[in-house]
Amino acid sequence: MQKSTLDSVRQVTFTKISDLGNLTVFPVTPDGTIIPVKRIFTVSQVPSGQFRGNHAHRYCSQLVVCLNGTVEIELTDSVNSSKFDLNSPDFGLLIPPGIWNKLKFEDENAVLMVLCDYPYDPDDYIRDWNVFLKLKSESSL
Amino acid sequence: MQKSTLDSVRQVTFTKISDLGNLTVFPVTPDGTIIPVKRIFTVSQVPSGQFRGNHAHRYCSQLVVCLNGTVEIELTDSVNSSKFDLNSPDFGLLIPPGIWNKLKFEDENAVLMVLCDYPYDPDDYIRDWNVFLKLKSESSL
Repeated sequence: MQKSTLDSVRQVTFTKISDLGNLTVFPVTPDGTIIPVKRIFTVSQVPSGQFRGNHAHRYCSQLVVCLNGTVEIELTDSVNSSKFDLNSPDFGLLIPPGIWNKLKFEDENAVLMVLCDYPYDPDDYIRDWNVFLKLKSESSL
Repeated sequence: MQKSTLDSVRQVTFTKISDLGNLTVFPVTPDGTIIPVKRIFTVSQVPSGQFRGNHAHRYCSQLVVCLNGTVEIELTDSVNSSKFDLNSPDFGLLIPPGIWNKLKFEDENAVLMVLCDYPYDPDDYIRDWNVFLKLKSESSL
């Protein structure tokens, strides 16, 4: 596996049909698949200004989209870091394994949707920053 | 195919992990699948009090969940009708084909997520109420 860097993070735009609000389409069919979706979760009703995330994944790629409100996401590959405002349902980030994420929910109506290509597995999560640094320097993560 | 009635609509509860907000899990893996997900779309930023929907499907079953705010959904099988408040990410409705839906977005921060077992197909939509009534009385829809 090639080591993942911030350059591996992909910005993705979705089809948005605006008519009395926005209908946004997230392709999961064989033709339009961005990732094979094995798990969907959402994060909502987070108190304004609070942080979530603070972990990386060993195996799972995640497509993250903010459906309402604003979530600021900070990504780092241990060498470089970058911040994005997720604030529109038609804009998402496809984050490969080996990228540490930190999420700031800017308002309590913010809704994050996450499409995953890997089922839930506690071993997939790296929650210790020092373990992450060690893996990034010593492995192919 | 058996004619669908309101009794065919299923109320579904999802796993919600509450800790600095709510993480809600929508199973799509073979073990936990409620429907095979062929399409995901969301509806958001609808002006408060506006209606959407007003159609039925010929083939598609839909799992509808409100991730933030409140969406009132009115369902009818042409004989009986029923209203539900969708106002929590851990509560959804699995709606089979042949059920007319009307959605009222109660507030502009309301976010509806819809998981579909059928790809987008214009022929899947019944948008004329009289055609719907005719199909319900004369076919197996």
